[in-house]
Amino acid sequence: MKIAIFGTGVVGETIASKLVALGHEVKMGSRTAGNEKAVAWAEKAGPRASQGTFADAAAFGEILFNCTLGAGSLAALEAAGRENLKGKVLIDISNPLDFSKGMPPTLFVSNDDSLGEQIQRAFPELKVVKSLNTMSCTVMVDPSMLPGEHVVFVSGNDAGAKAQVKQILTEGFGWKQVVDLGDITTARGTESFLPLWIRLWGALRTADFNVQIVKKG
Amino acid sequence: MKIAIFGTGVVGETIASKLVALGHEVKMGSRTAGNEKAVAWAEKAGPRASQGTFADAAAFGEILFNCTLGAGSLAALEAAGRENLKGKVLIDISNPLDFSKGMPPTLFVSNDDSLGEQIQRAFPELKVVKSLNTMSCTVMVDPSMLPGEHVVFVSGNDAGAKAQVKQILTEGFGWKQVVDLGDITTARGTESFLPLWIRLWGALRTADFNVQIVKKG
Repeated sequence: MKIAIFGTGVVGETIASKLVALGHEVKMGSRTAGNEKAVAWAEKAGPRASQGTFADAAAFGEILFNCTLGAGSLAALEAAGRENLKGKVLIDISNPLDFSKGMPPTLFVSNDDSLGEQIQRAFPELKVVKSLNTMSCTVMVDPSMLPGEHVVFVSGNDAGAKAQVKQILTEGFGWKQVVDLGDITTARGTESFLPLWIRLWGALRTADFNVQIVKKG
Repeated sequence: MKIAIFGTGVVGETIASKLVALGHEVKMGSRTAGNEKAVAWAEKAGPRASQGTFADAAAFGEILFNCTLGAGSLAALEAAGRENLKGKVLIDISNPLDFSKGMPPTLFVSNDDSLGEQIQRAFPELKVVKSLNTMSCTVMVDPSMLPGEHVVFVSGNDAGAKAQVKQILTEGFGWKQVVDLGDITTARGTESFLPLWIRLWGALRTADFNVQIVKKG
């Protein structure tokens, strides 16, 4: 499958490399063609890897991953071009982290809205599925690195899009438990988990952890 | 030990009954002495149970549990009287849930502050330990009702107070894993978990669940 990755940071690179390893053709998009990190990644990742602008990547991809920083996500999608996004599934991994007030970061949208919803509202032509935003990128693409069972969440309005994302998560990335929280408004739940994730990171002294849901029966 | 419970709702009643069953003397406090629910509880719970005003309960308790609705917590503590609170440990179970804008509730304080911090700031004479606010009250007092391991968090500025709360959680309520997140500002983490808890409640169709932290090694 042809897949676009928006963002050249460690999340984008980790997801992109995993998808190439799974046999997909992956184009990494950034603000400018020839971005140093994107070029370096594409050279290292081999013939199925390429890079270009957000618009190049969006035009190329049948499925899109938003791995940009939350603060830049809406601008990146605007730059990708609405015609290139039309009808496509966007897996939104971003979190609305605001580092401008010092550490630990706060959220620049929360409580009665979420970045996932903002993206869906701004780009109704996309089928936005919020997922993978509750863990380190190492865990995202290799859940078996942690012992036992643990969960990844999906939120989105389109059942078909969620089914497609679930397939990538399970058959591609190796997730055993995918919890469908409901429509895109449930992204408020997973984005709100970040303030707890950040404190757990501090308390556990590692970013490589995740949560399991324990219930009766 | 003599323990005060602020609040006559289902959380207060569940915690109070558990503490009586463990052999403690428990006074349930509410706005007025003779509150119908508090009287009914005290009669049912037997000779170690009693009720009175917030001030009566605070004066009686060596340890205090805040089981009031978040929106009423500061007023309840004000009514309890600063002299009665002085130097005592308050286990704050409340959450800043705002039901005024419909369901699901939002949070009336979040992101760059928390109700736990508001209480600690307003009542510096208290040693506030935020805990037990991330699960149903059934699970709070009977963690073994769920299979396997799962966690309860503590946040607070006073190490001695956290040690005392940890002892009640483990030896009293039967918790096996208590995660110390750090000072009272980490209550932002657990209070922010509520928006995810609420969506999980919807997705799992039960309130009797909890989270386990899975990490490497």
